[in-house]
Amino acid sequence: MSKPATLFNRVALIGVGLIGSSIARAVRAQGAATSIVATARSAATRRRVAELGLADQVVESNAAAVEGADLVIVSIPVGACAAVAAEIGPHLAPGAIVSDVGSVKGAVVRDMAPHLPKGVHFVPAHPVAGTEYSGPDAGFAELFVNRWCILTPPAGTDPQAVDRLAAFWRLLGANVDSMTPDHHDLVLAVTSHLPHLIAYTIVGTADELEAVTRSEVLKFSAGGFRDFTRIAASDPTMWRDVFLANKDAVLEMLGRFNEDVAALTKAIRRGDGDALFEHFTRTRAIRKGIVDIGQDSPAPDFGRPHPDLPHEPLPKPYGSED
Amino acid sequence: MSKPATLFNRVALIGVGLIGSSIARAVRAQGAATSIVATARSAATRRRVAELGLADQVVESNAAAVEGADLVIVSIPVGACAAVAAEIGPHLAPGAIVSDVGSVKGAVVRDMAPHLPKGVHFVPAHPVAGTEYSGPDAGFAELFVNRWCILTPPAGTDPQAVDRLAAFWRLLGANVDSMTPDHHDLVLAVTSHLPHLIAYTIVGTADELEAVTRSEVLKFSAGGFRDFTRIAASDPTMWRDVFLANKDAVLEMLGRFNEDVAALTKAIRRGDGDALFEHFTRTRAIRKGIVDIGQDSPAPDFGRPHPDLPHEPLPKPYGSED
Repeated sequence: MSKPATLFNRVALIGVGLIGSSIARAVRAQGAATSIVATARSAATRRRVAELGLADQVVESNAAAVEGADLVIVSIPVGACAAVAAEIGPHLAPGAIVSDVGSVKGAVVRDMAPHLPKGVHFVPAHPVAGTEYSGPDAGFAELFVNRWCILTPPAGTDPQAVDRLAAFWRLLGANVDSMTPDHHDLVLAVTSHLPHLIAYTIVGTADELEAVTRSEVLKFSAGGFRDFTRIAASDPTMWRDVFLANKDAVLEMLGRFNEDVAALTKAIRRGDGDALFEHFTRTRAIRKGIVDIGQDSPAPDFGRPHPDLPHEPLPKPYGSED
Repeated sequence: MSKPATLFNRVALIGVGLIGSSIARAVRAQGAATSIVATARSAATRRRVAELGLADQVVESNAAAVEGADLVIVSIPVGACAAVAAEIGPHLAPGAIVSDVGSVKGAVVRDMAPHLPKGVHFVPAHPVAGTEYSGPDAGFAELFVNRWCILTPPAGTDPQAVDRLAAFWRLLGANVDSMTPDHHDLVLAVTSHLPHLIAYTIVGTADELEAVTRSEVLKFSAGGFRDFTRIAASDPTMWRDVFLANKDAVLEMLGRFNEDVAALTKAIRRGDGDALFEHFTRTRAIRKGIVDIGQDSPAPDFGRPHPDLPHEPLPKPYGSED
């Protein structure tokens, strides 16, 4: 019975927001690496990472972070990946694995690959997990448990490097799948990018009405609206970059969505109750499928807490017995 | 110190699904009535209500349920309200309060009021609360705590009856507001009906793609999509009726939503990152407003549970130390 081997000697984390700091915490919790070195663009974030003790070492530059690292994970908005790849390229150790966590893969491969030297293994990754919060305080070690991490290694990537990164993500609790960058971008356009765009849209729509006040929108949001506000509170920079980087697939999905909105609108306008009922019954089955495979909780209302009933005296003396 | 007075002597519940059964449980928990009589359209539901002990008496007809009741609450799809009102009208006790819980108020007032005799107080109500589950097993006593219940009494309604129903809902933990039926229907069109329609649409869109399989949609739903599936799993009959009954306000909100989708689509097509960033920053503030007034949980990801990290041996012997 040998002790469990660490997967990597020195992991370099570039960017320590929600995802980067969750990786740091999970690596520690699972003993996945001997040491963690971290860096972030802003001095405030670097200071906070040090205060939280998320890394063995916090350094000021991306170049310094990657020196001697056998795994480098870039966890930053996808629009910033090209510049970071150009910066770290000359400083990467031979044989190092370079990965990322970006929500778009075609653009990331296009932007990063040209800057990475021969002898370095580029294995792009996307852990499909997150919350509406941002920054190093928002992360937690369990974020990736039972979530999927998608690897999109370019053709010709060393299979051993891919296996090693897959083992890393499994150790952090994730399930691992792999596909081409283009297919990833199409799949995520529908399971993530379109939902975010629609949520951002409807929250904006509700905020711009004249006949209904913002106060009313907030008060009565438990009727359904509040569910959309969570993902519409996601990091604006990250999401701006996602839509710019995955433009074609998002526009394709938006086109299909618009057709479906038009069809349901027509059913409402014509009073076609049967069409509505049929559609609403079908979508119920999708929810069940997601809960059945453990990708959401069966708890009602996402498991939101419900406070106890207040046992206070009645506001006025009513009733027949007193 | 007198014991707290019960608000009502005999509460009749017509319809005992998620909402009706939650009312039954909350009335019991808070001692809001001396006795509860319940009925439901299907024999199976009546049997289940009796098994669960949700009422003191379960009867087979709406007419029998309302005999001698001083409060009648109709908790059924809004499309069925006219027929039920016609049925109970002749059997209501003088001075009784008749209310409902429908998500549309204009149509309910139009459909029910003509059937209710003079001397009976009609106070329509809408508790803005629910989950994606249906039926008598789905209810719980705390459902209404800190949620809003909107009363829409027609002009000329006895203020004492309105006050008494308001006191009832407060005793069940709700905050109470009142407004006209038309304004209610506009407010709920944006805070509830439009979100449900959009959720139903996008879940259908995702299920009809050729290039992305249903299995992929389910697996990678944690990217945002799964949030929409919860409300798209709501009761199909209830929601069919809502859209038919609140057609004008829903179509108005859909028109505005479509304009906003078009504006964001244009920003993506043109690569206008500043417009996207500005919009995404603004919507973040709305989420904060909802959490600040206690209408949603500040817990990340709605407080969804995250399983612990599995401390299992590594899948393969990797790393530098073994």
